[in-house]
Amino acid sequence: MLNIDKVYDAQKVLSEVARKTDLILSKTLSEGSEIYLKSENLQMTGSFKLRGAYYKISKLSEEQKKKGIIACSAGNHAQGVALAAQKNGIKASIFIPATAPISKVEATRKYGADIKLIDGVYDDAYKAACLYQKETNAEFIHPFDDEDVIAGQGTIGLEILEQLPDVEAVVVPIGGGGLISGVAFAIKQLKPDCKVYGVQAQGAGSMYQSFVNKKILELPVVHTFADGTAVKRPGDLTFDLCEKYVDDIVTVTDDEIASAILILMERQKLVAEGAGALSVAAVMFDKLPIHNKKTACIVSGGNIDVNILSRVINRGLLKTGRLSHLTIELLDKPGQLKDVSAIIADLGANVIRVRHNQGGENTDINDCFLKISMETKNAEHFEQIQQALIKKGYRIASNVQ
Amino acid sequence: MLNIDKVYDAQKVLSEVARKTDLILSKTLSEGSEIYLKSENLQMTGSFKLRGAYYKISKLSEEQKKKGIIACSAGNHAQGVALAAQKNGIKASIFIPATAPISKVEATRKYGADIKLIDGVYDDAYKAACLYQKETNAEFIHPFDDEDVIAGQGTIGLEILEQLPDVEAVVVPIGGGGLISGVAFAIKQLKPDCKVYGVQAQGAGSMYQSFVNKKILELPVVHTFADGTAVKRPGDLTFDLCEKYVDDIVTVTDDEIASAILILMERQKLVAEGAGALSVAAVMFDKLPIHNKKTACIVSGGNIDVNILSRVINRGLLKTGRLSHLTIELLDKPGQLKDVSAIIADLGANVIRVRHNQGGENTDINDCFLKISMETKNAEHFEQIQQALIKKGYRIASNVQ
Repeated sequence: MLNIDKVYDAQKVLSEVARKTDLILSKTLSEGSEIYLKSENLQMTGSFKLRGAYYKISKLSEEQKKKGIIACSAGNHAQGVALAAQKNGIKASIFIPATAPISKVEATRKYGADIKLIDGVYDDAYKAACLYQKETNAEFIHPFDDEDVIAGQGTIGLEILEQLPDVEAVVVPIGGGGLISGVAFAIKQLKPDCKVYGVQAQGAGSMYQSFVNKKILELPVVHTFADGTAVKRPGDLTFDLCEKYVDDIVTVTDDEIASAILILMERQKLVAEGAGALSVAAVMFDKLPIHNKKTACIVSGGNIDVNILSRVINRGLLKTGRLSHLTIELLDKPGQLKDVSAIIADLGANVIRVRHNQGGENTDINDCFLKISMETKNAEHFEQIQQALIKKGYRIASNVQ
Repeated sequence: MLNIDKVYDAQKVLSEVARKTDLILSKTLSEGSEIYLKSENLQMTGSFKLRGAYYKISKLSEEQKKKGIIACSAGNHAQGVALAAQKNGIKASIFIPATAPISKVEATRKYGADIKLIDGVYDDAYKAACLYQKETNAEFIHPFDDEDVIAGQGTIGLEILEQLPDVEAVVVPIGGGGLISGVAFAIKQLKPDCKVYGVQAQGAGSMYQSFVNKKILELPVVHTFADGTAVKRPGDLTFDLCEKYVDDIVTVTDDEIASAILILMERQKLVAEGAGALSVAAVMFDKLPIHNKKTACIVSGGNIDVNILSRVINRGLLKTGRLSHLTIELLDKPGQLKDVSAIIADLGANVIRVRHNQGGENTDINDCFLKISMETKNAEHFEQIQQALIKKGYRIASNVQ
């Protein structure tokens, strides 16, 4: 049975290995409220998952430790378990689908785990892990539906209360629900009037749906680039704890998550993964009743593939109107590029790419297209530029890339 | 005259506004030494510059404050001065060259400064600022060559000694030398046996050249993407302090800086700008005698334009062999794409883009090219793949994009 002493015990155990991550006031996000970021992306292994995994492993019997442990994950849980096993001097076998990004596989391998790359997707890796578990009797470390794991994650709640004793709301990303279960439990034991809100990606809202319908629902399919939260069915333990201790759960879209990642990078200088940015996305897009409240957002992890990060940057810039694309039909005669450039420059935008294309099959033979990418201030600024061009007689063929 | 009491005074004054930034142990960078990151990129305004600017402004007389202040900068100094002025309730006029990125201009404007956008480059903005200073008699806030500014930056040295009392070496980025002057002064007063090393970009090594030649030298031209450090001539004060208190200065290349930015993002989840990553680049590329030493690297700032960040990510991935490009000559017949894909997949690389081009003028009419971009583990891994393809009879036309 989960109790607050277990969470305190976890805190004591974790002091050996986990960082007490900084709680950072965000001036940028604090409009009409006071927003703090609990920077678990700066945790060892790049996410909070180490806490639960380490505490769980520390509670295993000596006999269990000798048999080793097994986990199945392509992400943060893999790295958390691998480091926790290394620190405890026990053998970890981590099953990873072969489709996982090389960077995550290599990061896990660096913590000394025995990596089992399994052809196929997560479910294939999970099946292989289960088979192996039966053969070896090693302990399977569940990523969220486990009391010790939940107690470990709950230590973040204790830290927030220490760092900001008059906190009024805590916003927590949800995948399977391990993090929010631990945090909500700890917060509500010690400061019952502090609100605890959960956030899920719209494309993977299994806990949200279950919470709203007051029973566990399994989604047929989940799709979000917050891949750390793509869980089809919440845990039994975690669902019960959410029902009991969580005030509300909301969802955010992938575009909103991308904007949150971008703000965290640009303004807070923090790299967050999709799952890690859920809480910030909910605050940015005003999904929660936190007006005037001192609010802590848990930025739960930062393990995002840099190739994906590049794409997120572009998506975020486009969505916030800071990167804009324009295709203009030109008569193929001299001087027009200069005219168009002047109109754009006068309105204060920076052109960052120009392509000049001869026309396609639907245009006159001597028409051509000018494709321009530019840095703009926001969507209104871009609209201004389009209007100025139209006024000068240019035809805008498209304003997407 | 600079003295340690002034630095302590600055620390007291700064407690109102500056964050005591976290000192973060980096497991990734700690090979054969113990590397800590002083995360001044997480400072208010995204860089250490706030410290010096705020302390300087706090020391102005009431009369000077009434006249307001002037600064000329497209970067961190602008934001530091703007926030410091806002907090002190005085008027700041910031001269910025119109070529500066929109994001930096907007960030400075948000702190309430009066922005003077000047056509041209930095020198033009500087001239306009000087003219304006003569008209208004407002105080010009120098970005580095000022005792109060230096004392403000020196507070970082005090914090490092508090956070890691047995620190053995501190590594500091250098532009004009304000940061290292303050830090080296404070460290050497309180812990003379702790080494202080400076790092400059190779393309902007004005302090390095001056330090080596034991006299102030002005470079005719500076070129680096660590734009925060592109200073042609070190300050008089800062040069003297470096001569006296700095143990050595080294340089790093732009490619090395890009790799450091990438490691900081991927492994530490911290966004650093070019200037901010200098210290980490020097450690990564083994430029300093810090073997077995507890070393604090100052990550001085994180204000990098995200469009540039995208390019840095790609450059860093290419340099470390994690992104590789290959152009293969194919006979234009079926099945070869499948063969090539299989060879690459068997060796564990992820193909992320394929383009199929009909041949150019130097090839047979029925030859065509296959351009492949893939994620690889490192340079050796890429070499392996190339050798495997050659062994199967394929001709590699190029391994750059």
